[in-house]
Amino acid sequence: MYPFDANKLDHLMGDAGLNLILACTRHNVRYLTGGYYYHFHAGATRMGRTQYLPFVGIPRGRVEKAFYVCRAEERGQLEAAVPWITHRVDAVRGTVPAAEGAIKTVQQLGLTESTIGVELPFLPADAFLALQQGLPKARLVDATPILDELRAVKTPKELALLRTVYDRVAEAIQAGFAAGKPGTTTAEIARCVEREMARRDTAFLYALVCAGPGRLRAPSSARWEQGRVLHIDAGGETGDYLADICRMGCLGEPSRLAQDLHSACIEVQGHARRLVRPGLPCRDLLIEGERAVAEHRFSQYGKFVAHGIGMVSHEQPNIAPTNALPLEAGMVLSIETEFIHPEVGHVKIEDAVAVTENGCEGLGDLGRDWHVVHP
Amino acid sequence: MYPFDANKLDHLMGDAGLNLILACTRHNVRYLTGGYYYHFHAGATRMGRTQYLPFVGIPRGRVEKAFYVCRAEERGQLEAAVPWITHRVDAVRGTVPAAEGAIKTVQQLGLTESTIGVELPFLPADAFLALQQGLPKARLVDATPILDELRAVKTPKELALLRTVYDRVAEAIQAGFAAGKPGTTTAEIARCVEREMARRDTAFLYALVCAGPGRLRAPSSARWEQGRVLHIDAGGETGDYLADICRMGCLGEPSRLAQDLHSACIEVQGHARRLVRPGLPCRDLLIEGERAVAEHRFSQYGKFVAHGIGMVSHEQPNIAPTNALPLEAGMVLSIETEFIHPEVGHVKIEDAVAVTENGCEGLGDLGRDWHVVHP
Repeated sequence: MYPFDANKLDHLMGDAGLNLILACTRHNVRYLTGGYYYHFHAGATRMGRTQYLPFVGIPRGRVEKAFYVCRAEERGQLEAAVPWITHRVDAVRGTVPAAEGAIKTVQQLGLTESTIGVELPFLPADAFLALQQGLPKARLVDATPILDELRAVKTPKELALLRTVYDRVAEAIQAGFAAGKPGTTTAEIARCVEREMARRDTAFLYALVCAGPGRLRAPSSARWEQGRVLHIDAGGETGDYLADICRMGCLGEPSRLAQDLHSACIEVQGHARRLVRPGLPCRDLLIEGERAVAEHRFSQYGKFVAHGIGMVSHEQPNIAPTNALPLEAGMVLSIETEFIHPEVGHVKIEDAVAVTENGCEGLGDLGRDWHVVHP
Repeated sequence: MYPFDANKLDHLMGDAGLNLILACTRHNVRYLTGGYYYHFHAGATRMGRTQYLPFVGIPRGRVEKAFYVCRAEERGQLEAAVPWITHRVDAVRGTVPAAEGAIKTVQQLGLTESTIGVELPFLPADAFLALQQGLPKARLVDATPILDELRAVKTPKELALLRTVYDRVAEAIQAGFAAGKPGTTTAEIARCVEREMARRDTAFLYALVCAGPGRLRAPSSARWEQGRVLHIDAGGETGDYLADICRMGCLGEPSRLAQDLHSACIEVQGHARRLVRPGLPCRDLLIEGERAVAEHRFSQYGKFVAHGIGMVSHEQPNIAPTNALPLEAGMVLSIETEFIHPEVGHVKIEDAVAVTENGCEGLGDLGRDWHVVHP
């Protein structure tokens, strides 16, 4: 019936003592509506001296009373795309009118003295002040962790979107290597990756490009030279789901040492992948990955990291030494192993797996081996 | 010496009683630094449960004491790109650490009891609360209008960027028409315009596409049919400068009535353009444009609008009936005339002019005539 797990949201809100959630970020608006965001502002919210600000409001235990504060211009689209939210509140454009629309609705729902979860690190300050002034007896608290937790396990539809964006970003990275010649700058490679993402209907987020033996990852005038390794660590987004991948290339055959460093990455990544399955405590993945690096002869140059990924580049599950919670099927992890060697440069492989019932499935696995360019 | 008009900023801050400006939006960070923004977050600021938040701080009358609150990772780039800001304050990633970095610097500058301008409609609420708590004797007020006013007159470098993005968006729109066949949906046309912008290193912001005689402008399953007009009203961005253009196309020759409506747009736009020059009171442009529409035989279907444009789609000068301030050379205006006719549909031309010493210069004027597609 609802595009998200309404029971889970109820429990999370109950545990946090929230009576109402007021979500406003593009990610969480899309998540809670099942994919909707006003197309006109998906690329840029700013207009004049203010910005577009929608609110999805959900009272605890009464999802059927959910409401949406929108611009009048988007009403037609909203009605077609999100039929289950029948309570639509028009607001003149801008942050403060949106807050006023939310206040009026909170009053109608009888929640003026309740605890309201807002996205504090994202909600504009003037809208926050308007909410505070218009609802002086309400407590406004941060709902970001609750919404983050709500998104932790991906639905089959979300996994399909993630497979798509991972495939596209993996392809764009390979096209970036293929454009390399001796003397190509890392800025040129980054621009090429950006265009290749766009050709695949994928929004470019960033490309960190590092030409060995240098260590600078920001796109720059640094040049890729014959016999040298290069990594492309790039992020792209399709429909608000993102991919974050790092691959290795070389102009000509990589040296023996470079090959060994790359093999070390693949080994550690493989070790981590073999462990991933429902029930594995999050911290065990980190401990095992770090141990695999520590036991390697290149350990002094190495590092292992893993983090949840989906709509946001670091989301749940939190792969930290303190987190004993188990992995669940449908979670998606980005796993990274790198060795920064003074003679070779920055050798890194980052890729993602979705936790399945029995283990895991690689996303965007194209090009994990060397991309050797023979110009 | 500085990339912006430091005297003008001083005067604006003086008039508003500000002792310090703390700018944080991508647009104003780029404007005040002369083009810099941390590349890794230009496409997406969100990371985990918080977001990237830089601050450019400028004390009134002491531009040489300007400071930048950054992530440690961006320091190298920042030093190379913005050498004149020598005071760089590292903050761990996230909104609250950035606010703490700003607080510490405000204390060092002896401005704890001053009036500080922040971008209230954009500053995250948790950063605002941290500033309020860390600087309890300071007054935090909105600096958005001051920064908007500071950007009103474009430099030659900005005008060059605007010429470029206007040319690219105008070309992308023409390519969008060219992809049309009987039955093509407005969603397909919008996607084509998006790709054509990307091929030109231009970030897609939006495409409103309207197939006559319908009036729905949101990209949808509405189809463009033989003999029908279509408008593409699209926005794109290059280096944080944007273009906003509307052009007309037709599958086959447009009807006599459609041609007359388009000619009416061009006439009104031409009348407005002939008036634009330094010294013209802003309101006179609106009054004259509205009069030209009102005197037309299609007046009942018509509307005229104009607004400043640059980094933001509605910025200074404000072309409003109450604004008697004069146009100045270097200002850029978006001018729009439209007629919504029940038989034909939505006929609209929007284009931009830069105010020159003697009159004005059209930006991205490609395709103001009909784009007739013969499939």
